[in-house]
Amino acid sequence: MALIVQKYGGSSVADAEKIKNVAGRIARARDEGNEVVVVVSAMGDTTDELIELAYQISENPDSRELDVLLSTGEVVSSTLLAMSLHVMGYPAISLSGAQAGIRTDSAYSRARILQVEPKRVVRELEKGNIVIVAGFQGMTEDMDVTTLGRGGSDTTAVALAATLGAEVCQIYTDVEGVYSADPRLVPEAECLAEIHYEEMLELATYGAKVLHPRAVELGELFHIPILVASSFTDNPGTLIHGGVAMEVRNKVRSIAHNLNRGKITVVGVPDRPGIAATIFEPLAKAGVSVDTIVQNASMQGITDLTFTVFKSDLARAMEVVKPIATQIGARECASDDKLGEVSIIGTGMQNTPGFAARMFSTLSEKNINIQLITTSEIRITCIINADEVKEAVRALHRAFEIEEE
Amino acid sequence: MALIVQKYGGSSVADAEKIKNVAGRIARARDEGNEVVVVVSAMGDTTDELIELAYQISENPDSRELDVLLSTGEVVSSTLLAMSLHVMGYPAISLSGAQAGIRTDSAYSRARILQVEPKRVVRELEKGNIVIVAGFQGMTEDMDVTTLGRGGSDTTAVALAATLGAEVCQIYTDVEGVYSADPRLVPEAECLAEIHYEEMLELATYGAKVLHPRAVELGELFHIPILVASSFTDNPGTLIHGGVAMEVRNKVRSIAHNLNRGKITVVGVPDRPGIAATIFEPLAKAGVSVDTIVQNASMQGITDLTFTVFKSDLARAMEVVKPIATQIGARECASDDKLGEVSIIGTGMQNTPGFAARMFSTLSEKNINIQLITTSEIRITCIINADEVKEAVRALHRAFEIEEE
Repeated sequence: MALIVQKYGGSSVADAEKIKNVAGRIARARDEGNEVVVVVSAMGDTTDELIELAYQISENPDSRELDVLLSTGEVVSSTLLAMSLHVMGYPAISLSGAQAGIRTDSAYSRARILQVEPKRVVRELEKGNIVIVAGFQGMTEDMDVTTLGRGGSDTTAVALAATLGAEVCQIYTDVEGVYSADPRLVPEAECLAEIHYEEMLELATYGAKVLHPRAVELGELFHIPILVASSFTDNPGTLIHGGVAMEVRNKVRSIAHNLNRGKITVVGVPDRPGIAATIFEPLAKAGVSVDTIVQNASMQGITDLTFTVFKSDLARAMEVVKPIATQIGARECASDDKLGEVSIIGTGMQNTPGFAARMFSTLSEKNINIQLITTSEIRITCIINADEVKEAVRALHRAFEIEEE
Repeated sequence: MALIVQKYGGSSVADAEKIKNVAGRIARARDEGNEVVVVVSAMGDTTDELIELAYQISENPDSRELDVLLSTGEVVSSTLLAMSLHVMGYPAISLSGAQAGIRTDSAYSRARILQVEPKRVVRELEKGNIVIVAGFQGMTEDMDVTTLGRGGSDTTAVALAATLGAEVCQIYTDVEGVYSADPRLVPEAECLAEIHYEEMLELATYGAKVLHPRAVELGELFHIPILVASSFTDNPGTLIHGGVAMEVRNKVRSIAHNLNRGKITVVGVPDRPGIAATIFEPLAKAGVSVDTIVQNASMQGITDLTFTVFKSDLARAMEVVKPIATQIGARECASDDKLGEVSIIGTGMQNTPGFAARMFSTLSEKNINIQLITTSEIRITCIINADEVKEAVRALHRAFEIEEE
């Protein structure tokens, strides 16, 4: 009897009918002879509604209280899912994150899992129960409720799979799996049968929203294969694992993109040691995450400093940077909020030259201007105008012949 | 510095504005130099909405899962109330029933409090926090969430007050206090300044919905004065305690009524030992709570058996009783679902004759037929037609001159 962990996202349990559908899928996994642990997100827009409620009360709700508030969403869906399994005649029990032994630090709203103490989960499995765990939440040493931040339920699922030694962690969502590009942009994009952890990590970080990078990292660390598939169809989905064959890996696997970048350029900065810290330390303190940083070659002791941030952080970042720019004697401070990123990703790239050249020439043929470039061993990212991203993704998908895989 | 426990009902925290109003009242209690523990119900109709959600999934939801589901309602309101106090600059923390140490048996949906372990509450008070406790819920030895059934939040409040040695337990609700009769029926009814536990217990049991009998019993047992008052006004409300002066007690204090009785009469029952058990044991097993039972004097070994149940239980009770009636050879089995009760209540009654006579003659003058009568030492209840209850309450209120107090 194999143990599997399944996770169902909020859109998969958005109403009573969808919950019944999910219960049917869980029952089938059980009928196939598996022990089943299920992690579930809050129903549909519940989390957003609870956040709105909090902001009706306070412009700046206390993060401990907000975590307790938000954690109720997953508790609700987990109990309803257990009830739905009972109706079908299956033994099931819901557990909160705390009851399931998800122990975290006390960094409210973005807690990290320190440890999973699966005693109760194991006991309920031994009783023959299907165990439904409320995702996205844990408990501190002090017995206070925390939430895990974005992608929290995915992380709960992979952490439980790792601790329980599950055969696979199945992430069910409202898309068919991981695609070679966003199928809304590239109609010929294909759902990949498998992908390596590292490729998925880059994809998740650079645009694909299907799975959170934290969950991918955790899966790689504990060697837990992660299946991403639809909760509405029986298509096979995409298996993320470490054993993807070389010939499959030896090419560009997927094109990622996003439209949420903003750029700040500080023009005419005196090029002296410590100047970067003067700018970036206050940004870090203000909670602004800076992505790419480019410093132009210094001309007569004067340089330009350009960096990108999330578009949603741009206004706040400018507030921080402007007075600093004045103070250090920079000539100007400009921002651009209409940027996007397009990335090509594939583990094969690290051993094969020519990928970057082909990417740049493809964009150039389409008259798309590249503003910034960043790379990792298995990824090349170009920052371009947001309104050219769609064309860039299509052109790159064709240029790297991903659909012929 | 006195410690007080306040409880706010669902209608007092029904939306963000009302929550802010309640936070203002709590802040005032704090400003007056008190340590404050607050017990809060779920917002408005939340509990009903959660129940509806459960019944969309299952006709017969598992009681453990239902309790976990319902408990989220009070967690939500407690976090919002804490946030609202933060906005006003007051230190506050929300605790679930489990965190507040409310330990119960595992009788889901109607759990009894076994013990309160107030360690965490005390620690938070020592830190200077206003402590907001989610009402209506507790935790079993096994760390499973339970709910306390009807009146659960009142019970949580009085139990916490008893354990913490509070000076008073203040129950804030949407009415001004305990009245001499329902003011919707009797415009001249008065809000009582004080009332004895025992009178309140009878009132709560026989119609007044303002406070649950369990909470009153607990208050009496631990000598905790309970104030019932409105969360929307600054009127003084009604203090329930054991020290009500004799001259105040020596009369009828209040008229209670309800419209939710049904009556079953089993006609022509052979009067032999054990026949009552034959009928009432199956009813108890079916979860039907039987109130008044009257057995007419036996004539030639044949008797009539009449009893009342909640109107909502009447159909179910008839299903149980009909086959038994046939089986024991009764002649007929009749039901009436249009009954109500009217009660006069006052501790003075136990030492003073003539109350019953005046009650019966008052009803008789109004041509109101009494179907059944039950009494306790401090209460006389008449079961009459539901459509005559209003007139009966008014006539009795005048007859016993309650408004001249």
